[in-house]
Order: sequence, then structure tokens, then C-alpha cells
Amino acid sequence: MSARTAARPETDIPRLLQDFEGGKRAGLARVISRVENEEPGFRDLLKALQPRLGRAHRIGLTGPPGAGKSTLSSALVKHFRAGGEKVAVVAVDPSSPYTGGALLGDRIRMNELALDPGVFIRSMATRGSLGGLALATKEVTDVLDAFGFDRILIETVGVGQSELDIACAADSTVVLVVPESGDAIQTMKAGLMEASDLFVVNKADRPGAERMARELSMMLHLRLGQALRNVPAHHGVDPKRAGSRAKPAEPLKEEGWQIPVLQTVAHEGGGVTELAEALDRHRAWLGASGEYEKRRAARLRERVREEVDRRLRQRTWKEAQGEARLRDAAPALESGEVSPYDVAEEIVAAVMKADWSEPG
Amino acid sequence: MSARTAARPETDIPRLLQDFEGGKRAGLARVISRVENEEPGFRDLLKALQPRLGRAHRIGLTGPPGAGKSTLSSALVKHFRAGGEKVAVVAVDPSSPYTGGALLGDRIRMNELALDPGVFIRSMATRGSLGGLALATKEVTDVLDAFGFDRILIETVGVGQSELDIACAADSTVVLVVPESGDAIQTMKAGLMEASDLFVVNKADRPGAERMARELSMMLHLRLGQALRNVPAHHGVDPKRAGSRAKPAEPLKEEGWQIPVLQTVAHEGGGVTELAEALDRHRAWLGASGEYEKRRAARLRERVREEVDRRLRQRTWKEAQGEARLRDAAPALESGEVSPYDVAEEIVAAVMKADWSEPG
Repeated sequence: MSARTAARPETDIPRLLQDFEGGKRAGLARVISRVENEEPGFRDLLKALQPRLGRAHRIGLTGPPGAGKSTLSSALVKHFRAGGEKVAVVAVDPSSPYTGGALLGDRIRMNELALDPGVFIRSMATRGSLGGLALATKEVTDVLDAFGFDRILIETVGVGQSELDIACAADSTVVLVVPESGDAIQTMKAGLMEASDLFVVNKADRPGAERMARELSMMLHLRLGQALRNVPAHHGVDPKRAGSRAKPAEPLKEEGWQIPVLQTVAHEGGGVTELAEALDRHRAWLGASGEYEKRRAARLRERVREEVDRRLRQRTWKEAQGEARLRDAAPALESGEVSPYDVAEEIVAAVMKADWSEPG
Repeated sequence: MSARTAARPETDIPRLLQDFEGGKRAGLARVISRVENEEPGFRDLLKALQPRLGRAHRIGLTGPPGAGKSTLSSALVKHFRAGGEKVAVVAVDPSSPYTGGALLGDRIRMNELALDPGVFIRSMATRGSLGGLALATKEVTDVLDAFGFDRILIETVGVGQSELDIACAADSTVVLVVPESGDAIQTMKAGLMEASDLFVVNKADRPGAERMARELSMMLHLRLGQALRNVPAHHGVDPKRAGSRAKPAEPLKEEGWQIPVLQTVAHEGGGVTELAEALDRHRAWLGASGEYEKRRAARLRERVREEVDRRLRQRTWKEAQGEARLRDAAPALESGEVSPYDVAEEIVAAVMKADWSEPG
């Protein structure tokens, strides 16, 4: 029955929560570590924080490497701080200065921000959790929301599906491009249109920015993105498969919200006020249109799925000794004596045979 | 016991295999559909094909949108065809002309290729399988390998983790950049260095190509990438977590293989012969160094993990009525009466309580 131990409420949870509720930074850091590392009691912490979620404005910031995401995010942080708001930054970008892969100038700018007690910066460069990086990031964001931050910036890199998933867990997702990002059609084809609530052409003092912004606006207006790319279905849950041909254009998911295309010169703060205003307009629209509640409901269901996956992985690879079974099977696997499908069947059988009558 | 039905060998499997073994294209297409759609008997098919794997040279081709991946892949196809080899292309790129999101010129070029009976093109734009797109892609690639293709090109977009995972399942992974991709440091930071066996600067007739190639070579030589970014651990299996700080430089995984940086002008075939030669050198090195066997073993273990995940998802969401349970819980979830963690616990308990004593 070793399975139960991991999820049994730990005795220090009430004390942890007390420090956290008192607004102590040390308490916040301890709760985040507990959650991020999936240490005993982390589920009880997350459950206890559930009623306090939804106050923060979660802003996703995504785009290709070199688009200036961290420069823009620090400019936004400064802007929000000037308005007296408390701001947290969660960086999932492996190329972010927060995570060590920094250019010196970036790192100095970040360190300045980090000295401000109204700013909290957390990097999520870690991998290897049984729930995956995306789930860990969302749970850390929940903790920051419950702690009372007014804005939470979530910075992810790239056009990859898992990165987009993280960015889309935000209330408002900003997709950043640069004039050199290639043409607008390529950007649309990469699936960024479906993910975005706002577009920003950064480094707008470079040649081509106007053209890029104009093309993006035109395509958004024509809703070409939908025709260029199939809408991605949700992970492992959609019984119907999207066809391999492009679908006819459909209305965008966000009826009544015209995705704006803004221009910024983040390193000198240009256009940042306008971006912050657009973010506020988007937030207001989310509430007024009922879209916020729709997204919240979808996020809750998605969290259930992710948590089920994590629990099953935990049982399989840790508690039911899946790792050891796989190790033992390796020679037969490599010689071709057994197929991976046979070994998998054996591991699943072991998970099911164990006495899990009381879920941990 | 409905769980057993799905995996019971279907009566038409022997006939399917017979057509497949006879080298019939229709047989190939039917086996691929069966596998891709996870239709009854697909595991038996995959098991039957296991002994025939490993003959094809699997070539991954990845890079940002607009880098010219499909142009380069069709140039490579032509090159291999000229040498009398049979070539398959698996496109996972949502922006690929294979998948519908095509520019007219690309699509015409692809259609020409598709008329050649020695070429087989398959797009993997579909989502929603319980195993995920990555697993489906790898299994389709297995089918093509077993069918007897000499080269299999796997085209994926982006710098995202799941896209890199697919590309890395190839024997030889080519990372494509263009002179406009931003500077070499950004490319390295995006994690492309760890993924690549060969670098290609495409559109090398544009300004900046020489500089890009030189910088990449220099960084590869200095092994700077390793210092700039943590090596990603494997999904859900590494009990140790990477720290959030950059690690000191370590030797690259591929001792004895100096990652080449090539230049191509894919649309007119420039540099394609040199790329094909470099791919052959890499393949020879894989065999001679023992790296091929190491990678093969790692892939087999990874396949076990992915198959275990898929089986558990299937049980949870289909057979144990997870979807219905989640739907029923939605109102309480949205009102905050229960937390997502409670609902997940209930679903996992249902999976474990069902009579799965004979795994399907």
C-alpha cells in the first residue's frame, strides 16, 4: 500500500498555507517548490488554493526565438508596476534570460526587476516531472494567482504544440513576431492565429514592420488562417479526427473580438502602453462576452485530464515498478524476442493487478 | 469485458499482411490507415512488422516555418529517386503543402512527385488519437520501413518539444535554418543543437548565409549549445530534474561525429548532392560507432512507454467511461463544489476498480 503515502496530507500543510496566506514571499516560494516538485501534499495545497483562483490576469507571451519576448515582458512588468500592480513572470522559454540562457544585457535588466518586491520571477526550465512541464507551469501559475498577483506573464518560446498549449492556458495570449519572421502567410500557417488574442510586431523600428503588420491585419480580417490550417483538436479526447485537407473558413472562436495587430519597440518601451491598454480591453471583453467563463470551464476539464494522466503515470512507473520491469525486459526487447507492445501489455497488466482499491 | 474486443486479432489481418508483403500499394495504404486510426487489430499488425524494421534510413527534417523544408525534401526525394531508391515522405508539418496548407507552386511540385510509383507521400495532419501525433507518426514510419522503402523523410515544423521528439526518432536529423532565422546564438538557444545531426542553411543564395553557416560551425565546434541550454530530459521518466541554471559544457552525445553545416538552395537543387552525401556518411557513422544500436534500444524503450500511456488512456477515457464521468462532473467543477483533483481521483478509482484482469 505504498501508493497511499504519496498523497496523504502532510502535517506541515496548514503551516505552509498560513505563511502563504500571510503574504510572505518565503511562504510563496515554499509552496511553489512543493507544487513544482510534486512533493508529498502538493495536491492538498492545490485543492486548498482552488477557491482563490481567477483574480489574476494571466497573459501568455509566445513567439519564435529572438522575437524579443523577454524584453517585451520586462517592459510590460515595468508598465504594470508603475500602475501599482503586483506582477509575476513565469518563463518556460529555454532561451529566456530567466532560465540561464541569457545574453548579458537581458540578465542585467532582469536582475533589476527581480529586486522590486512587487515582482516575482520564476523560471520553469525543469523537465522530467510525471505531469510534464505544461501541467507544472499551469499549477505554478495557479499558486501565483492565489497568492494575489494582479498580472501573471507566462513566457513560452516557439510554435510547437506543447508551447502553444501553455500559452493558451492564459486569459490573453500575445503572439510576438518580428519583421524578419518571414511573411505573414507563414506565420499564419504555423498555427499562431488560432492561438492568439493579440498580435505584436516587435522591433517595429526595423524595415518591413509596417508591411508585416498590414499583412497580418489583412489575413486576420479575411480569417485566412482558419482555411490554411486545421484547427487542432484536443489531446486524446476528440474521437473524430480532423481531415488532412484544409477546412473551409469558419468564424473565429472569438466572435466579437477583433484580434489587434500592434507594433512595439520593446527595448525602448515603444508601444508598450498601447499593448497594455489592448490587454485590458481584451480582459474586459472576456468578462462581458461570457468567453471568460467558457475558457475557465474548458481549463478545469483539461486540468482533470492532465491530473488523471499524471496519477496513472505515477502508478505505472513508480508504484507498479514500471521502470524496473522495463529495465528487466530490455535485453529481450533489443534481441527482438519480445515486441514493445508485449512489454507494454505486461506493464499495464501489473498496474491493473496491484491493489489500488483506495486511490492515493 | 468490452476491453478485450479492441485488441483481439481481427480475422482480416493475415490477408492484410499478405497484400502488404506482396508489395501492393493498396495493401500498404490499408495497413497505414489501420495503424493511424488505431482500428481493431492494429497492434497485431505492428507486432508482425517488428522483425522487418531497421532497413530504411529515417531522415528527420525540421526547422521554422518558411525555412523551405518541403522544397528541400522534394529535392532530396528527386535525388534519391535518381539513384533508384524507393522513398517515402511523412509530413507532420501543418504548413506543409502535403497537408493542404499549400502555396500553389509547392503543391504542383508535390503532385508531380506523387505520380512516381517509387515515391509514397503521407501527411499526418490528424490529431486526437489516444496515442498522440508523435506515436502515430512513428508507427506509420515503422510500416513504411517494413514495406521496404529505402529512405523515409519525416518533415516536422518548428522548435517545439513534441516536434523535436518526432524529428529525433529519425536516424539522421537535419535542422534547417535560413539566413534570416536570426543569429546563430538564438538558433542554438532554441534547443536545435541537441536535436541535430546535420545543419543546413537553406536559401543560401540570400545575403547572410555565409555568416550564418560560419557562426553555426563555430558554435558547434565550441559546443556552446550545451552551455546555453539544459539538455532536455526524457518525458516523465527522469527522476532527477535538471537545474534551472545552465550546465557547464559537456561532450556532445555524438562523440566522433562532427555535425556538418551545409548550404543549400533547395528550389534549384543547389547543395542537395552534398547533403545526400553527408546523410550517407552519417548513416555509415551510426553503424560503425555503435550509435545506431544505442539509439535503437532507446527508441524501443520509448515505444514501450508511449504504448503504455496509450493503453491507459484508452482504458480511462473510453472503456472506464472517463469522458462520461467528466461530463457529469462538469457542473460541480464549474461551481467550485469539487476541485479538478477530486474529479481526477474519482476517474482513476473507476479505472482501477473495473475488472481488467485480462488486459486487452
